[in-house]
Amino acid sequence: MAVQTVASTTESVDLGPAAALSCRECGHRVPLGPVFACEECFGPLEIAYDFSGYDTEELRKRIEAGPANIWRYAPLLPVPADVAGKPNLNPGWTPLVKADNLARELGVTGGLYVKDDSGNPTHSFKDRVVAQALEAARAFGFTTLSCSSTGNLAGAVGAAAARAGFRSCVFIPHDLEQGKIVMAAIYGGDLVGIEGNYDDVNRFCSELIGDPAGEGWGFVNVNLRPYYAEGSKTLAYEIAEQLGWRLPDQLVVPIASGSQLTKIDKGLQELIKLGLVEDKPYKIFGAQAEGCSPVSVAFKAGHDVVRPQKPNTIAKSLAIGNPADGPYVLDIARRTAGAVEDVTDEQIVDAIKLLARTEGIFAETAGGVTVGVTRKLIESGVLDPTKTTVVLNTGDGLKTLDAVAGTGLTATIRPNLDSFKEAGLV
Amino acid sequence: MAVQTVASTTESVDLGPAAALSCRECGHRVPLGPVFACEECFGPLEIAYDFSGYDTEELRKRIEAGPANIWRYAPLLPVPADVAGKPNLNPGWTPLVKADNLARELGVTGGLYVKDDSGNPTHSFKDRVVAQALEAARAFGFTTLSCSSTGNLAGAVGAAAARAGFRSCVFIPHDLEQGKIVMAAIYGGDLVGIEGNYDDVNRFCSELIGDPAGEGWGFVNVNLRPYYAEGSKTLAYEIAEQLGWRLPDQLVVPIASGSQLTKIDKGLQELIKLGLVEDKPYKIFGAQAEGCSPVSVAFKAGHDVVRPQKPNTIAKSLAIGNPADGPYVLDIARRTAGAVEDVTDEQIVDAIKLLARTEGIFAETAGGVTVGVTRKLIESGVLDPTKTTVVLNTGDGLKTLDAVAGTGLTATIRPNLDSFKEAGLV
Repeated sequence: MAVQTVASTTESVDLGPAAALSCRECGHRVPLGPVFACEECFGPLEIAYDFSGYDTEELRKRIEAGPANIWRYAPLLPVPADVAGKPNLNPGWTPLVKADNLARELGVTGGLYVKDDSGNPTHSFKDRVVAQALEAARAFGFTTLSCSSTGNLAGAVGAAAARAGFRSCVFIPHDLEQGKIVMAAIYGGDLVGIEGNYDDVNRFCSELIGDPAGEGWGFVNVNLRPYYAEGSKTLAYEIAEQLGWRLPDQLVVPIASGSQLTKIDKGLQELIKLGLVEDKPYKIFGAQAEGCSPVSVAFKAGHDVVRPQKPNTIAKSLAIGNPADGPYVLDIARRTAGAVEDVTDEQIVDAIKLLARTEGIFAETAGGVTVGVTRKLIESGVLDPTKTTVVLNTGDGLKTLDAVAGTGLTATIRPNLDSFKEAGLV
Repeated sequence: MAVQTVASTTESVDLGPAAALSCRECGHRVPLGPVFACEECFGPLEIAYDFSGYDTEELRKRIEAGPANIWRYAPLLPVPADVAGKPNLNPGWTPLVKADNLARELGVTGGLYVKDDSGNPTHSFKDRVVAQALEAARAFGFTTLSCSSTGNLAGAVGAAAARAGFRSCVFIPHDLEQGKIVMAAIYGGDLVGIEGNYDDVNRFCSELIGDPAGEGWGFVNVNLRPYYAEGSKTLAYEIAEQLGWRLPDQLVVPIASGSQLTKIDKGLQELIKLGLVEDKPYKIFGAQAEGCSPVSVAFKAGHDVVRPQKPNTIAKSLAIGNPADGPYVLDIARRTAGAVEDVTDEQIVDAIKLLARTEGIFAETAGGVTVGVTRKLIESGVLDPTKTTVVLNTGDGLKTLDAVAGTGLTATIRPNLDSFKEAGLV
């Protein structure tokens, strides 16, 4: 992995409480800039904050008086203080649904909640991370927003760039389904199909970043990744605030690269340190599809390293066979006394249907994974049904209709009462 | 149309400020119940409220302290005061997007906003109306929620019924696209395909209401229609509150049955009467597709009656050829000095793309109709670009992908820099 060498006048960059980039492995600090790998050890860089000077009760009041989107948490994010007035898609503040019907089916008595991110502007949690990357791109003077994607991210980048007045150029495998191409292309940016698979697309993007042709380009999930990733913290903030500034006992989070889970943990830790919630134990459970379960396999085997897999599952938004943050996920699951579990494609479909018929929430396959894993963990006694539990749905069923294509009509009748009565529905 | 004769103990029904049903034509009042047509003149019944005793500033504070969904307006809706604690999908409080990029393209200088209802639980404004019908169904002791539908409504009813613990049985033409069937079926209720067109489905539902087989059934858009329709008032409330308790100068609203437009006007009038906004003139513009433009044709011809059409347009969610509230729409457009206009399917597609590339909002065809009509009315000098204007997007582009199926890749390349540079995008 090549270290970024893009020069940028980062001295004057205002990204609010973001103070520097810090290596997750060796702690080496560098100024804020469009870099993602440590120049010392090649470890991943993440945002280091300066939260000193915050008064807990003032901060709480400021958040509660903020807008009904992620910018209510601007004091805790790498964004300027006036971010809410800038053109952005303003995602977040999605419902935390008290899922009493689902709780009854699963035998949960301690309170079960679904954090439903399908209401975001482009209907996935990706809007949260792209919103951060966009503000970083603005701060660094980038003019083009880019990414490699197989679906949700392409739409989120295209939409955010359109609204914020950035050019966008998004790279996808050329043979994606027509529906996904339409969703990514509709925002009018450039959408480039690459003859190859997702790995080829990723490799090409890394090449482009190092080339003069990529000058002025912010790749949200590459050179802007440290900023981008912080967006997932807002899920933790919202869950705690929506519970009345209280930590849940258990969280079930999907794993693709593992970044979301690690940032949710980071967000919860920040809330504790800032005194916004009581310091109490919580358990984080990671959820994968059996067809792409490298972290789950490592967890169960007691390994610290994650062995890559070749994905084969209907949960395509989670199908990252070599998850960059896999080892950190293992750390967090073990530190919090959680677990990592996986479910089959059949269990994913069953869980999508279960959530839909109990709570009226039509989840993406990733939501089927978390609900399915929740059920499995309850049945195996690993997840405690007497504790407050939050399950994440990070996407929208409308984007993965194929997974439940078998769902159909109960009956077909002629337009008269006799025919209806013969159908046996009354 | 047969008058409903369902008996119900409506004496003790608690639907908040809803005092009675009142005939829109002759003013005849009847107690709250699952009826929709006047027994005297067959005119449509609507809710009459008792808002006496409301103090303006107390009411404003109560609303502002309410939840981030339609139930903040519970004091103005036919629902019990404790509605927010009951299982419902809790739609609403969707973003009012300041559309500066679109304004620039259209030459609007007075402030242009898009009320984007695609963030609702099932991604259309139908969640607002179904939420009201559901509370009425609960109050009247119905156990099954039903409707006739060709799309959005089927999903909204299925989802709301699932969450609230009602059985649902929804009727659709049997030959709908597979995607729409999946979206309606996923919530686990009964979904019955009828061999016939939408008119046949409607006729069948009217028969079923009068039959013992339909006992205990609330048809949201038939016998619960007076309650259902009130949900559209919340669009007016939210727009005014989101503008800082101010009326916009101009609103562009889609017309299907015309109910939404008439209820938005009703909502704005209520806000004025309650003193929540300053009493000032506003203009309401109705928007139709040329391929289903009975109200627009009547408006332009100066007629008071609406002549039915056979719909032929990509804007299927607006394709009602004989709109029940058409004459009321004509009244409102004329009273407020607005207008009714229509656009071609080509203009609808252009407008969907325009909204997507300027604001990152992927609208349903109905949103293409309102944006397209806005552009047309500005060009013809009918809509004043120096005034504050709100355009409604009532649905989600993900549900009408076919309409923009031609949208696709900018380029296809091999996974290397040379191939990318040859594509001419840098």
